[in-house]
Amino acid sequence: MTSITGRSAAGQKLGKIFPHLASIDLTIAAELGDVALAFSAMPHKESAPQIIPLLERGIKVVDISADFRLKDAAEYPCWYGFSHPAPQLLEEAVYGLPERYQPQVAAARLVANPGCYPTGAILALAPAVKEGLIEPDIIIDSKSGVSGAGRTLSLHTHFPEANEGVAAYALDGHRHLPEIVQELQLLRPQLSPSVTFVPHLIPMTRGILTTCYAPLASGKATAGKKEELRQLYRDYYQSAPFVRVVDSPPHTKQTWGSNFCLIHPTIDDRTGKLIVISCLDNLVKGAAGQAIQNMNLMLGLPETTGLEVLAIYP
Amino acid sequence: MTSITGRSAAGQKLGKIFPHLASIDLTIAAELGDVALAFSAMPHKESAPQIIPLLERGIKVVDISADFRLKDAAEYPCWYGFSHPAPQLLEEAVYGLPERYQPQVAAARLVANPGCYPTGAILALAPAVKEGLIEPDIIIDSKSGVSGAGRTLSLHTHFPEANEGVAAYALDGHRHLPEIVQELQLLRPQLSPSVTFVPHLIPMTRGILTTCYAPLASGKATAGKKEELRQLYRDYYQSAPFVRVVDSPPHTKQTWGSNFCLIHPTIDDRTGKLIVISCLDNLVKGAAGQAIQNMNLMLGLPETTGLEVLAIYP
Amino acid sequence: MTSITGRSAAGQKLGKIFPHLASIDLTIAAELGDVALAFSAMPHKESAPQIIPLLERGIKVVDISADFRLKDAAEYPCWYGFSHPAPQLLEEAVYGLPERYQPQVAAARLVANPGCYPTGAILALAPAVKEGLIEPDIIIDSKSGVSGAGRTLSLHTHFPEANEGVAAYALDGHRHLPEIVQELQLLRPQLSPSVTFVPHLIPMTRGILTTCYAPLASGKATAGKKEELRQLYRDYYQSAPFVRVVDSPPHTKQTWGSNFCLIHPTIDDRTGKLIVISCLDNLVKGAAGQAIQNMNLMLGLPETTGLEVLAIYP
Amino acid sequence: MTSITGRSAAGQKLGKIFPHLASIDLTIAAELGDVALAFSAMPHKESAPQIIPLLERGIKVVDISADFRLKDAAEYPCWYGFSHPAPQLLEEAVYGLPERYQPQVAAARLVANPGCYPTGAILALAPAVKEGLIEPDIIIDSKSGVSGAGRTLSLHTHFPEANEGVAAYALDGHRHLPEIVQELQLLRPQLSPSVTFVPHLIPMTRGILTTCYAPLASGKATAGKKEELRQLYRDYYQSAPFVRVVDSPPHTKQTWGSNFCLIHPTIDDRTGKLIVISCLDNLVKGAAGQAIQNMNLMLGLPETTGLEVLAIYP
Repeated sequence: MTSITGRSAAGQKLGKIFPHLASIDLTIAAELGDVALAFSAMPHKESAPQIIPLLERGIKVVDISADFRLKDAAEYPCWYGFSHPAPQLLEEAVYGLPERYQPQVAAARLVANPGCYPTGAILALAPAVKEGLIEPDIIIDSKSGVSGAGRTLSLHTHFPEANEGVAAYALDGHRHLPEIVQELQLLRPQLSPSVTFVPHLIPMTRGILTTCYAPLASGKATAGKKEELRQLYRDYYQSAPFVRVVDSPPHTKQTWGSNFCLIHPTIDDRTGKLIVISCLDNLVKGAAGQAIQNMNLMLGLPETTGLEVLAIYP
Repeated sequence: MTSITGRSAAGQKLGKIFPHLASIDLTIAAELGDVALAFSAMPHKESAPQIIPLLERGIKVVDISADFRLKDAAEYPCWYGFSHPAPQLLEEAVYGLPERYQPQVAAARLVANPGCYPTGAILALAPAVKEGLIEPDIIIDSKSGVSGAGRTLSLHTHFPEANEGVAAYALDGHRHLPEIVQELQLLRPQLSPSVTFVPHLIPMTRGILTTCYAPLASGKATAGKKEELRQLYRDYYQSAPFVRVVDSPPHTKQTWGSNFCLIHPTIDDRTGKLIVISCLDNLVKGAAGQAIQNMNLMLGLPETTGLEVLAIYP
Repeated sequence: MTSITGRSAAGQKLGKIFPHLASIDLTIAAELGDVALAFSAMPHKESAPQIIPLLERGIKVVDISADFRLKDAAEYPCWYGFSHPAPQLLEEAVYGLPERYQPQVAAARLVANPGCYPTGAILALAPAVKEGLIEPDIIIDSKSGVSGAGRTLSLHTHFPEANEGVAAYALDGHRHLPEIVQELQLLRPQLSPSVTFVPHLIPMTRGILTTCYAPLASGKATAGKKEELRQLYRDYYQSAPFVRVVDSPPHTKQTWGSNFCLIHPTIDDRTGKLIVISCLDNLVKGAAGQAIQNMNLMLGLPETTGLEVLAIYP
Repeated sequence: MTSITGRSAAGQKLGKIFPHLASIDLTIAAELGDVALAFSAMPHKESAPQIIPLLERGIKVVDISADFRLKDAAEYPCWYGFSHPAPQLLEEAVYGLPERYQPQVAAARLVANPGCYPTGAILALAPAVKEGLIEPDIIIDSKSGVSGAGRTLSLHTHFPEANEGVAAYALDGHRHLPEIVQELQLLRPQLSPSVTFVPHLIPMTRGILTTCYAPLASGKATAGKKEELRQLYRDYYQSAPFVRVVDSPPHTKQTWGSNFCLIHPTIDDRTGKLIVISCLDNLVKGAAGQAIQNMNLMLGLPETTGLEVLAIYP
């Protein structure tokens, strides 16, 4: 069965709240029905307490919040301002980046869907980190559409304020930073990644472009070896249906509405820096689409089920 | 007198070509009148040959093109694809960043107005470079509105293509890079700056936000010393009427239509990186407004004449 | 078989030209392959000469250009500036608005896909015209996203010019007017529609919102009868899978990327005017999606094949 | 003296709340200082009670709210939901459209600054109504940028919802309608205007474009007489420094940041309709700029003082 729950809108037709879904005949319920798998899209801190009873009922869960993304419970008070209610589940929970943890996701009962920024940043850096191509001194400069800030109203997302302008934010540390550091560390234990991550809000609805910079490790990929570098990335992602390594800098519109992440690795020959640019739709590969991809794996469905749609362009 | 020239529009009223200027009663001429100072807004390579006769006629010139920005004539074939027709003028020409070269501009007969990206990048980094706060390993990640690409039509600036998306470009080296390197080098001769510069086009008309990253030099400004850092920047720019050092990350809209450059220097305490964010209106401080600022100095007018207008917000 | 042709891009992979389609393995050919049905997306005047030989080869055609939309060959010199090369086909060609001509489309070998504006305007007015609810004095005020102007570069569609502004155009008569008049006339032969149509370009990529105004015919739907009016519209469109009559003013985003046309009819009680608002995605229901809908009918497929995708929101 | 008051921000520097005004050294006060004239920018219903004591103190007032725009106190409960607290002032208050009431504004102690939509609509129609060119059956279709909805947060003005889409609203009657009807009526008492007004929100920050439609009165301006019509408009506005009658359809960007209203009257020769398009910046001529224009007149200053700035383009 299919069941959808909501607090403020319980009892209403889905199409009443989201008119573009009017052709789906579903009523928003207060309680979850008898399902095999649930997506939790609660705010952080509120999600874990809702999920624990579902797991006890034998329901698999994809948590779209941050509540099970970090392995170290001590990070939660620091970054999210609460003590984790179920630290024992943190180890069990699988970080839901299928390009990295496909078999683990397939076997999991609890998957922590990654944040939108970490998805693009980790996919951009994973092959280089894994292969030891770079020094650990990493800069991640991300540009996100405004929907990344969610549906909660704020002056920063008020149209006349957000439109026609750009700003950086969270310069003292964005909550997605520890996920990124954790996953880069796990990719190459001997690396102690030093990551500076600066997100920016730009005047568009959807999409994240992430530009990553790191010094090439000496003796590794060198100036002029751009094609070799791209081949290394292609090899790394050869079985990933939603990653495409591209030969020129990608435009976020090439992923609008789709579950693809496009990655363009290159080298600044003058300075010996690796530059990797990734882009994705923050609401699809960066959130709901990746959740479906995880669900597919958890339920033994083909990984691409329901996600075949191409980007809407232009 | 005031005189405006144009090739394709010669003979027409200014307001016919630019309706928002209809209240200015000027006719576009084929030949420049008897003026004390001229602005040249020709494309690069075409500008220098137009300017040389003006100088010979005793007319001061602010060149908005790149033709006199680089000190080393050997850079022109490499970056702009032509041999410089008057290398002897490159030394005489003053790089028109008044915050850096105010007395030289005031005495100049030929000023090379900086590029839009270099203005924001150099202003963001100058105090730190000058004071030796950073290692030479610099990343400059810029986000520009589409008007930065000029008025020439292209698919990249076609509304349906440019809207609602972001992309990096010029990954093999943007023409503004050598200006930036030249000026950082001149600020501190013992530094050999290694600069990686990646520009991005974002879906807005005006504005450039530049995010600069560099490792703090050991023994210099350290973690937790953010207020000291900002004070150092404020001191550096204390007599600059169009630079404002701000306490929180600036939004490009705060400079829309004005000649201000806002600068926010800070420190990533986790990684020991200097982060400096600057923003400006690429068509004002990044081009025409800075040209007027230079003219004011060259003609002995108050530096802010004609430039007092505040940003249009929101 | 599937075949795609192109003049300037012949020989290249589709994904090279349109990166978002890279996962479709098709090469652009110079000549059309052995297909059952062809879409022609040539400019007007150039389309007809390409289509005639296809028909002679027994290939069904959906023409996305205007070349077969008007029944009266005499209109072509006036509105499109050419003499029609095959006036005998004008009568045979079916105007491809399936909500109006479903059986005729199903039987056709040549379908003239409607323009983007006429689709929204005719669907908005058809029930009222058919039922004689209104006087013939009709105002149609349309607001279109910039993609409606096509991919040809122009100053009007240059991002910095088109962004953050709105203007009306074609005040002396837009080419889509005769289609609208023709079809309203055919809906009710005794009506001689007097149609003022003003299109506007607004700063968004996709979508058309059309606001129609007409005096209510005396004795017909009257002030306060809004629900009856909506029911009449619902009845008219009861078997149309892509029209949804909605209870509140629709937002074009509710149709973004989908083949739906949303229609909201209401009454201005103070003035006795019918107001009908319709919206659609100009590139889907206003062009390519409608073409597929026509193809489905022509090939005996379910009308909604390939068009089930919901709108991308937000 | 200059004094600025605010409730939530009292005690703070102006530049703290609005960073783009940081160069103005003003502190927000709780109480108004000793000024000659005050602008009230309170919400409707709250403005009148604040204004009455100011008038008693001998302070002239420009009220930006709607509290003194309507002459008939009985309209307030109907359109604004409150009984007017000072109906005796409604007759005294001058409707602050200087192009219509310049001498009255100059002599007034209380001016009701018009709404943003009425400014554009009345200026577009005034010459035609005054001269009896049209029948009273008027359609006004307006397209406004999102800042017209104010700074109060709502889902309709949340960036991801408002961006890339357009919708009509207030189909049952917008509060600006009675102002429009009142002023058209006063322009020509024998006309009983029947006005259908439909506002639309479009994805841009500033600007209103208004498209007006009305049948030409028989015997008056006729098909083909477009130039005569424009001359009539030019004559009507010959002494209005901020109205420009233009020969082609204006673009709202031509007024961005300026106090101009551009007007393009034309005729639909096919249907005998007058079409008039006006555009302005809703935050300048549609609000604060017009308030300054009124102040100038009330204080005996040149009408254009402080308002000479040209539009920012593009």
